[in-house]
Amino acid sequence: MKMIKQISSIFVLCVFVSVNTMGQVVEDFIPSPVNQPGREYPQVNSEGRVRAQIMAPDANYVQLDIGGVKYDMVKDENGLWTGESAPQDQGFHYYQLNIDGASVPDPGTNYFYGAGRWGSGIEIPAYDGQFYAMKDVPHGLVSAVNYYSKLTQSFRRCFVYTPPGYEANTDERYPVLYLQHGSFEDETGWPGQGKANLIIDNLIAAEKAAPMIVVMDNGYAYKPQDNTADNIRPVSVFEEVMITEIIPMIDTKFRTMPERKHRAIAGLSMGANQTMRIIMNNLDKFSNYGGFSGTSNYPSANEIDVETFLDGKFNDGKKVNEQIDVLWLGLGTKEPEPFPGSIGAFRKMLDKQGIEHTYYESQGTAHEWQTWRRSLYQYAQLLFKNK
Amino acid sequence: MKMIKQISSIFVLCVFVSVNTMGQVVEDFIPSPVNQPGREYPQVNSEGRVRAQIMAPDANYVQLDIGGVKYDMVKDENGLWTGESAPQDQGFHYYQLNIDGASVPDPGTNYFYGAGRWGSGIEIPAYDGQFYAMKDVPHGLVSAVNYYSKLTQSFRRCFVYTPPGYEANTDERYPVLYLQHGSFEDETGWPGQGKANLIIDNLIAAEKAAPMIVVMDNGYAYKPQDNTADNIRPVSVFEEVMITEIIPMIDTKFRTMPERKHRAIAGLSMGANQTMRIIMNNLDKFSNYGGFSGTSNYPSANEIDVETFLDGKFNDGKKVNEQIDVLWLGLGTKEPEPFPGSIGAFRKMLDKQGIEHTYYESQGTAHEWQTWRRSLYQYAQLLFKNK
Repeated sequence: MKMIKQISSIFVLCVFVSVNTMGQVVEDFIPSPVNQPGREYPQVNSEGRVRAQIMAPDANYVQLDIGGVKYDMVKDENGLWTGESAPQDQGFHYYQLNIDGASVPDPGTNYFYGAGRWGSGIEIPAYDGQFYAMKDVPHGLVSAVNYYSKLTQSFRRCFVYTPPGYEANTDERYPVLYLQHGSFEDETGWPGQGKANLIIDNLIAAEKAAPMIVVMDNGYAYKPQDNTADNIRPVSVFEEVMITEIIPMIDTKFRTMPERKHRAIAGLSMGANQTMRIIMNNLDKFSNYGGFSGTSNYPSANEIDVETFLDGKFNDGKKVNEQIDVLWLGLGTKEPEPFPGSIGAFRKMLDKQGIEHTYYESQGTAHEWQTWRRSLYQYAQLLFKNK
Repeated sequence: MKMIKQISSIFVLCVFVSVNTMGQVVEDFIPSPVNQPGREYPQVNSEGRVRAQIMAPDANYVQLDIGGVKYDMVKDENGLWTGESAPQDQGFHYYQLNIDGASVPDPGTNYFYGAGRWGSGIEIPAYDGQFYAMKDVPHGLVSAVNYYSKLTQSFRRCFVYTPPGYEANTDERYPVLYLQHGSFEDETGWPGQGKANLIIDNLIAAEKAAPMIVVMDNGYAYKPQDNTADNIRPVSVFEEVMITEIIPMIDTKFRTMPERKHRAIAGLSMGANQTMRIIMNNLDKFSNYGGFSGTSNYPSANEIDVETFLDGKFNDGKKVNEQIDVLWLGLGTKEPEPFPGSIGAFRKMLDKQGIEHTYYESQGTAHEWQTWRRSLYQYAQLLFKNK
């Protein structure tokens, strides 16, 4: 009898192991941290799977659309559809539901702007999630600043993080980081899914970063006449807006240290490309650059011709070293081409020119926000050390 | 021939008039002002109708769900569903789409928190929309303030509007209005669909209101032990949070005038009920009250017994007149019961007690944001006149 028990235990164990290795779902789901208040679904499990659920009694099919894959969901007798994705990387991901061909946000989640739309987001808890967690430390403020842009003839908005103590210490001035989102995102990206304010709050509380102001604006800016149906690729005036409108406004409205050595710029993906151009064209304004999953040679992986690239701005390596205090590049190890190729080609050029830089790899993350949260966490620690 | 022309003109005119009176749709639709960037749908027309559109090729039915009515939409040969609502009141409305029984946000709109969810919103342009329009006037900042509440043992957030000039005039102190949302809404209501910052910006620019700080917090606050499944009606500690946590924090973080005569409180619906209790229990803290579509005798329309109502706080009418500078009540003319009844009963009590107050009616609006935007616009003009 004892033997039978042992055998059956072994048998049960084998079955359990086999269903796991066969890709069965581990039943330890919990609600995603970015759900709407009180919503039980979507959920995530220890494998990083996403389980979505929606009531749609008369639907023909419902799919969970995440990471470029549509997973069929299954209907129960009450009309409630449930389904899981394959394991996802740690961190934040955009996703949608597909109900009979309609791509819609999941009503269970908070909404985030990305992929050119406000849509659902899921947070796969990460092993290192503490660096962007909301903690009982002093918190800076994130302010929405509305302003009129003469260049674009439109109202624009940026979010401005001011560090803890900014309101009380009215004699103090602070260095400024200008921090940009990627393509098909907007100024809500960094203070939203990017958690930039919490990352800087936690760094300051741990005395790992200097108290700083962080300005998060919208990287899309066009002159009105360019923004027509006849002109499908309008010319961006974002650099001009940044230099002649945003920076002067920030230096007027906030107590900044308005010198180049107290100013940094960084961006992710498209924002990395944009901000590299901005710093190299305006070295009198900035002395620190961060490129998160992007460079201005994007999307090319070809060897860079320093004579012509950005009008030869990297030609004199010694001068670049003198002018740029921090030149920082980051990439996720799971990012697809063309990112590793173009960033690799850029780094080769830097090495050839003898230009000092820091290179960081985010382990196990792709072209997504966990890479960029980690990049900001690393980059911000290097800034304004001699404030 | 001329006669035939005239007759046919009259005939055409008659047909035109008759289709209009029969409820046909006037084809002058334009995109809603609160659509996501670049989205053509949903649209609104001069009658206030909402036209929604969504691609759902395999759906059995799609409905536009607005104002408590579900309007059937019609599918074309490409799977694109289109449909219109009956005319809606001017101003902002929450709505959803119903796809085969799934209630989901319309992917075309920005999202707003109301009805206990983040969902779609539509803006029916109002004849008086200029008072909350984004204009090229000095803009204050709206800051998100994260703080830890010991009472609720949770992180909470409020939005704080600081008026134009606040950042520059670091010696100046400002009066404060505490402004609360309604039931199933949250702290995003007033700075979002409420447009509180734009209303105050425009009033200050026109010199119709004193520069003030506006604090918009979340009216839901429970002690952890009360917030369990066993206790379906947990006891709110919002008043305690307001008095012992929010106000001291605001007076520390911001340059306020921390005396009762420079402090006002107001709220809409549930928030009107809450804030009336708060001011009457804390007349040492506040001297101005605004009740937008709500009072603390809600939902009763019965005659108020001043001996027992709010522990007799309105019993001494002369004292109330001395203590409250502005006592303000507002209501939309289209609001359903119990609002007109309970507010009417409250006003009768005030009159009987000889308590001075201002009463405002928003013409043609219901228990919705246009009533509350107008209420804030009216109320704010009366505040802090002797600053």
